[in-house]
Amino acid sequence: MNSIITIGRQFGSGGREIGEKIAAKYNVKFYDKDLLKRAAKESGLCHEIFENNDEKNNGSFLYNLVTDTYSFGYTSPYVELPLSHKVFLAQFDTIKKIAEEGPCVIVGRCADYALSERKDCLNLFINAPIEDRIERIKLKFPAEKDVSKIKDMIVKTDKSRANYYNYYSIKKWGRADTYDLCINSSILGIDGSVELISDFIDRFNR
Amino acid sequence: MNSIITIGRQFGSGGREIGEKIAAKYNVKFYDKDLLKRAAKESGLCHEIFENNDEKNNGSFLYNLVTDTYSFGYTSPYVELPLSHKVFLAQFDTIKKIAEEGPCVIVGRCADYALSERKDCLNLFINAPIEDRIERIKLKFPAEKDVSKIKDMIVKTDKSRANYYNYYSIKKWGRADTYDLCINSSILGIDGSVELISDFIDRFNR
Repeated sequence: MNSIITIGRQFGSGGREIGEKIAAKYNVKFYDKDLLKRAAKESGLCHEIFENNDEKNNGSFLYNLVTDTYSFGYTSPYVELPLSHKVFLAQFDTIKKIAEEGPCVIVGRCADYALSERKDCLNLFINAPIEDRIERIKLKFPAEKDVSKIKDMIVKTDKSRANYYNYYSIKKWGRADTYDLCINSSILGIDGSVELISDFIDRFNR
Repeated sequence: MNSIITIGRQFGSGGREIGEKIAAKYNVKFYDKDLLKRAAKESGLCHEIFENNDEKNNGSFLYNLVTDTYSFGYTSPYVELPLSHKVFLAQFDTIKKIAEEGPCVIVGRCADYALSERKDCLNLFINAPIEDRIERIKLKFPAEKDVSKIKDMIVKTDKSRANYYNYYSIKKWGRADTYDLCINSSILGIDGSVELISDFIDRFNR
C-alpha cells in the first residue's frame, strides 16, 4: 500500500475503528490523538492546550473573521493567533510532514484538505444510521442510560466536526463529493467495510 | 444478485453508464427513461407529458405548499394534482411495483426514498471532480465548444436534481449519509468503479 488514507466520520459510525484496522492490515501508522501530541511537540505548545482545543472552533463568526484576516498576513504563526487557529496551523503542518514520511491513515482534523495537493491520497468518509450509532456509543459510555442524551451527544459532536471542517476547508463535511469513497458501515459491518475499503485501496494502487 | 440497486449521480459523473454496466453484469433490468414510459402507460398519462416533467420541480414554494397539503388528503391521485406531482406519484408507485418484481437497477427519481422501507436495497451515489465531468459532457455534446456553458449546464442540472430530491424526500441529495456507498468515479474509472460496486453488492448478498 503506497497511499495516504484520510478518514472523516460521523460520531459513533465506527470510523476510528475502521481506520485502525486498515492501518494494522497494511502495517502503516495510524494518527489521531498521536498526531496532536506530535504537533504539540513540534510547535512548542504544551500538550494540554492541544487536548482542549482539538477540533473545536469556539469563536464567534465575527471574532474569527477578524483573526482570520489577521492570520494570513502574519509571518510568525503559533504566537499571536487565537489558540484554536494556532492548533489548526500546527496540525496542518504536521499532517503535511507526516504524509511526506510515507503511507499512513489519518482520522479527522481536515487531513484531506491539508493534503489536497497530493495525488497519492484517498479520502474516505464513514457514516451509519443514527440507531446504530446510538448502540455503539452506548457501549462506549455504559454509565449513560438516557438515549436522548446520547443522541444529543452524537448530534453535537457531528455539528462540531462539521463546523471545524467547513470553517477551515473549502469543501463541506459529510457531502459525498468531498470524498473519494463514503460507506455506511452498517451494511457490511466494521470488518466487511474494512475489506471493501481495502479493495478500493488495492485497485487504486494497481 | 438479489438486491435492488438505486443510483443517484452528479451530472457527468458516469453514474448512468455505471448503472447500465451493473445491470448488464448481473443480468437484471435497468430503469430510467424506460421507467417513465412505464409509469406513463400505467397511469394513463401520455408519454409527452412525462418527458417534459421528469425530475423538474417547477412550481413556486408557496404554490407547491398549497398543492402538497391538498395532495395528501386526496383519494384519486393523477387527476387534479399539479402535473409534476402527478408524475412524481405515478413514478413512486411504479418504482414500488418494479422492485416487487425482483432485482434491478434504478437511476434517479428518488427511487431510494420510494423504497426506503425495503431491506433489500443498496443506495449508491456517483460523483466526480468538475473537470472530469466537463470532459465527459463535452463528449456527449461535441457541438458545444464553450466550457463555461457546459459548466453552467452541469451546475443547473445538479441543482435541479437536488431540488427535486430534497422536495420529495426527507433526506438530502448528495450527502454521504443519504446513501450506503458513494464513489468518486474518477479514482478507479467507470469499469473499476463497477467492479468495486460489484464487490459491495456481492458482500451484501453473502
